[in-house]
Amino acid sequence: MSEFKSLTLRVRWDEAEFDYLDQTLLPDREEWRTCRTHEDAAEAIENMRVRGAPLIGAVAALGVWLAHERDENVEEAVERLRRTRPTAYNLHWALDRMERTDDPRKEAEEILREDVRTNKRIGEHGARLLPDSDEITVLTHCNAGALACVDWGTALGVVRTAVFDHGKNVHVVATETRPVQQGARLTCWELNRDDIPVTLIADTAVGYLMSQGEIDAVIVGADRIALDGSVANKIGTYQIAVLADRHDVPFYVAAPTSTIDPNAHTADDIPIEHRPEDEVKTVRGVKIAPDEVPALNPAFDVTPPELIDAIVTEKGAVKPEDVERLVH
Amino acid sequence: MSEFKSLTLRVRWDEAEFDYLDQTLLPDREEWRTCRTHEDAAEAIENMRVRGAPLIGAVAALGVWLAHERDENVEEAVERLRRTRPTAYNLHWALDRMERTDDPRKEAEEILREDVRTNKRIGEHGARLLPDSDEITVLTHCNAGALACVDWGTALGVVRTAVFDHGKNVHVVATETRPVQQGARLTCWELNRDDIPVTLIADTAVGYLMSQGEIDAVIVGADRIALDGSVANKIGTYQIAVLADRHDVPFYVAAPTSTIDPNAHTADDIPIEHRPEDEVKTVRGVKIAPDEVPALNPAFDVTPPELIDAIVTEKGAVKPEDVERLVH
Repeated sequence: MSEFKSLTLRVRWDEAEFDYLDQTLLPDREEWRTCRTHEDAAEAIENMRVRGAPLIGAVAALGVWLAHERDENVEEAVERLRRTRPTAYNLHWALDRMERTDDPRKEAEEILREDVRTNKRIGEHGARLLPDSDEITVLTHCNAGALACVDWGTALGVVRTAVFDHGKNVHVVATETRPVQQGARLTCWELNRDDIPVTLIADTAVGYLMSQGEIDAVIVGADRIALDGSVANKIGTYQIAVLADRHDVPFYVAAPTSTIDPNAHTADDIPIEHRPEDEVKTVRGVKIAPDEVPALNPAFDVTPPELIDAIVTEKGAVKPEDVERLVH
Repeated sequence: MSEFKSLTLRVRWDEAEFDYLDQTLLPDREEWRTCRTHEDAAEAIENMRVRGAPLIGAVAALGVWLAHERDENVEEAVERLRRTRPTAYNLHWALDRMERTDDPRKEAEEILREDVRTNKRIGEHGARLLPDSDEITVLTHCNAGALACVDWGTALGVVRTAVFDHGKNVHVVATETRPVQQGARLTCWELNRDDIPVTLIADTAVGYLMSQGEIDAVIVGADRIALDGSVANKIGTYQIAVLADRHDVPFYVAAPTSTIDPNAHTADDIPIEHRPEDEVKTVRGVKIAPDEVPALNPAFDVTPPELIDAIVTEKGAVKPEDVERLVH
């Protein structure tokens, strides 16, 4: 039986189905759910059961493969998957590849395997940017880890490479990342699982820790990168970049070149997803505010290039202004 | 029967007891608890059943009054109350007054009535700083409202005066304020109760909203002010001030002069309370992170004077560098 297995996915190629780890249930329960149709895949992306730009791309690719296997209208399946989440660019990159291929199973498998190889290269390039001190404290926001990808991770891939391959002593500070708490739930879970030291903080404590000189570097992922080096990432990233700038803490973005949108010239070309207000008004189903009060829930923000010290891709670490050269 | 009543307190002077609204249960339930001893009062402050610098001072004063009424060792009662929470200076200001007085009942009542008068004056001085536009959007952090005081509020007192006395059209954006969520639970509750429009956002969305030009001014309270104009307030205040500075949004602090510590010359003289990590690792009793992962929970941070446009007290709005003149 031909099977692909990673931290986030288990694909049974001959049975035309795949399982994903349902991330909405972490860290309480590790539950796997099965997709047999592209609609299953679309629902998983839409409801953030799988999330993280590279993983969204991978699951969308698998969704198109399933539509092929079931002899469904592939064009409609692609359009359905394209509409799931508006900001992550890797979704479009993966769907474009799946539209062009003659061998959907092979192409989907290649996208999955490539993701892990790409992250290992990002890890190599990124780990070299970390200071050479005995102990390094890296702050990260949201989850740009193995859980955001097929495996290994982008921002946390850099940490993994530094720790496992270069023997560095890295301590991670994870922001909770309200509203969906990917930092508390996912980053803490996956680093703890790998015995990499991690400390959780509220999103409100970033400035305080930087003012105390506790943070040596910030590394985050990206959902879409414009050609001028503007980076869309989880809401809250921009304000961390502003604080890093004030405190002279280097601010790095780690992402595959598939995150770069060749049609987005600046931040204005990046659509920002607004999600349901209940994500803000509740925490894991518990109400935290009066029913009558409305909430705003922008899911992403854009960090301008002048606040970014380097964008680390599988092709190397570049200054934001050099991003365009990576895709043209 | 002689009774004092406000949004947060009900004091029965002749019965030597008082009730407070238990703020840990808001916005779900409005429950009042009774204090008959200074230990009851100390427990209420320590466990944040009452919170907010002015209210902490008022409840501590009532605690000393109860010790007097019960012929207990007043010096020990004062010391017990002094140890409850380290950062808010109004606690010490109120306890010092209660130590000096010959008439504890009268002094406690005066502290309570003074707090409301003081807040109304802060409101007058602060409302004049707001822009003259048709619609004003004010961002606030934590709860510096009627619930943080005996009544009316400091930062939200400015909003109330602007709306109720000056007829201004003010819309408040309330940050959730993790970990204890005073913004989501308390600011939203008390503004909604007064029909003042309020929108809740996650703490991560402040930078995004400012970058979209959505915020006209920031007003926050204070827990302790040093003589150089440094302001200790709820964790997360500092990073909002940094963002306001970047986006040219005026940043105001509203607090009574009893918040100014005449012995604190700079930020270094202000102790920062660190609270239990479970406040970060849980939300209203629900676990949000793996048990094995530690959390840091600094409860306050300090905003330096250069980021503050004005400190609004009952004696007027002053530049941070002029704070010293208000107490000397």
